[in-house]
Amino acid sequence: MENSDIVYGKNAVEALFNEAKTSRINKILVSQNGKKDLKILNIMKLAKENKIPVQEVPKEKLQTYTKESHQGIVALVAPIEYASLENVLLNLPADKNNLIIILDNVQDPHNLGAIIRSAKCAGASAVIIPKRGGSPVTPTVEKCSAGAVSLIPIVQVTNINNAIDKLKEANFWIYGAEASGSEIYHKMQYNSNTAFVMGGEDEGISRLTAQKCDVLVKIPMGSTFNSLNVSNAAAILMFEFLRQQNF
Amino acid sequence: MENSDIVYGKNAVEALFNEAKTSRINKILVSQNGKKDLKILNIMKLAKENKIPVQEVPKEKLQTYTKESHQGIVALVAPIEYASLENVLLNLPADKNNLIIILDNVQDPHNLGAIIRSAKCAGASAVIIPKRGGSPVTPTVEKCSAGAVSLIPIVQVTNINNAIDKLKEANFWIYGAEASGSEIYHKMQYNSNTAFVMGGEDEGISRLTAQKCDVLVKIPMGSTFNSLNVSNAAAILMFEFLRQQNF
Repeated sequence: MENSDIVYGKNAVEALFNEAKTSRINKILVSQNGKKDLKILNIMKLAKENKIPVQEVPKEKLQTYTKESHQGIVALVAPIEYASLENVLLNLPADKNNLIIILDNVQDPHNLGAIIRSAKCAGASAVIIPKRGGSPVTPTVEKCSAGAVSLIPIVQVTNINNAIDKLKEANFWIYGAEASGSEIYHKMQYNSNTAFVMGGEDEGISRLTAQKCDVLVKIPMGSTFNSLNVSNAAAILMFEFLRQQNF
Repeated sequence: MENSDIVYGKNAVEALFNEAKTSRINKILVSQNGKKDLKILNIMKLAKENKIPVQEVPKEKLQTYTKESHQGIVALVAPIEYASLENVLLNLPADKNNLIIILDNVQDPHNLGAIIRSAKCAGASAVIIPKRGGSPVTPTVEKCSAGAVSLIPIVQVTNINNAIDKLKEANFWIYGAEASGSEIYHKMQYNSNTAFVMGGEDEGISRLTAQKCDVLVKIPMGSTFNSLNVSNAAAILMFEFLRQQNF
């Protein structure tokens, strides 16, 4: 099990300073070599401004926190606070079509991180993940998200299908992404609140959840190799939604 | 340095049996547990049909080949053969708009693998990578590509800018992906041979290469967080190209 109260990597640590999320940071550890990096120097400056202690440590010390590539910087932080679906839905802007991503058992923390990152880029209102069966938010997720986990509500739910019901009540149209889907994703008109359901790497969307979706959409391939990575598939769908909102 | 003559993971090994690439495989190693998996059983059947030896080994033995998640199967293979740009260009179909991806110093093997995978899905004709400054094809790349490295020509070039010149001679229009690009990617009309140039994770496209591009395109964000992962950005561009080809 990964330790869930560190953030490592330049972009991920820098993102902690965006949108006033500095309250999560307890301390920042920087390696001697890291201090030569412009981005890390900038983070140290931000830390000083925010009265957050910075400690210089040997590179070996950073490696005791993570085996992954830390790029010379590790932040010791409070764990992220998951958001409640009720709060997310209460705070949706009424003047636009809102976007939410639902992950049905995405297991790989690299994929989860990349999806959260693209969801934040796309201006999504939340990413919904299950309490069991999928990856939670770990330091690897936080790194791969380039820090976006601090910047977009992540909702952990006991039951994905109940969450879909609540989204439907909030006028969301639910699109499940499936290779065998009956509709082509870019032929849909995303002119209401929109949720995309992405399945896990191995099994795709579970049967009951697929039945809950309003439409199952597929992404047509340009070859017989039909094997898009789930984070790439999610990005394609989210940015088609965005294209249709005239971004 | 990773050993470059193994392929691990179920999808990646299975892909070796597609499109008659079995000539790369010397031997397949399967763990006791792996033999309970339907996909691995199918691979063993394919191996038998192709007269490729399969050896059952303890799980620990597989771990000596890779520290990554091997899913109970490792294939010992000949290294991939890089393709020549000349051959790729000679073999382009004349009856469609062809797609090529150029990577200017993408460093992370997970990203390189994911891009090669999506490029194969999108029906691209090749992925061009530099001999120096970016990740070569490693076992991690092959795993993350779900085996697509065996199914799409990968061209390693000494000089990206020379490669762009050759593509221009072959009537390719060169689109560089840059956050500061002057044009919106989905406003372009991709009605000729199309190449997308993607920059490295840290620095983006190098200055000289950006100057070589016919157009610099940006992907508009739905938020102020402008930090798409390079493989997600590549997927968005490739599938917009595909959408415009009526897929």
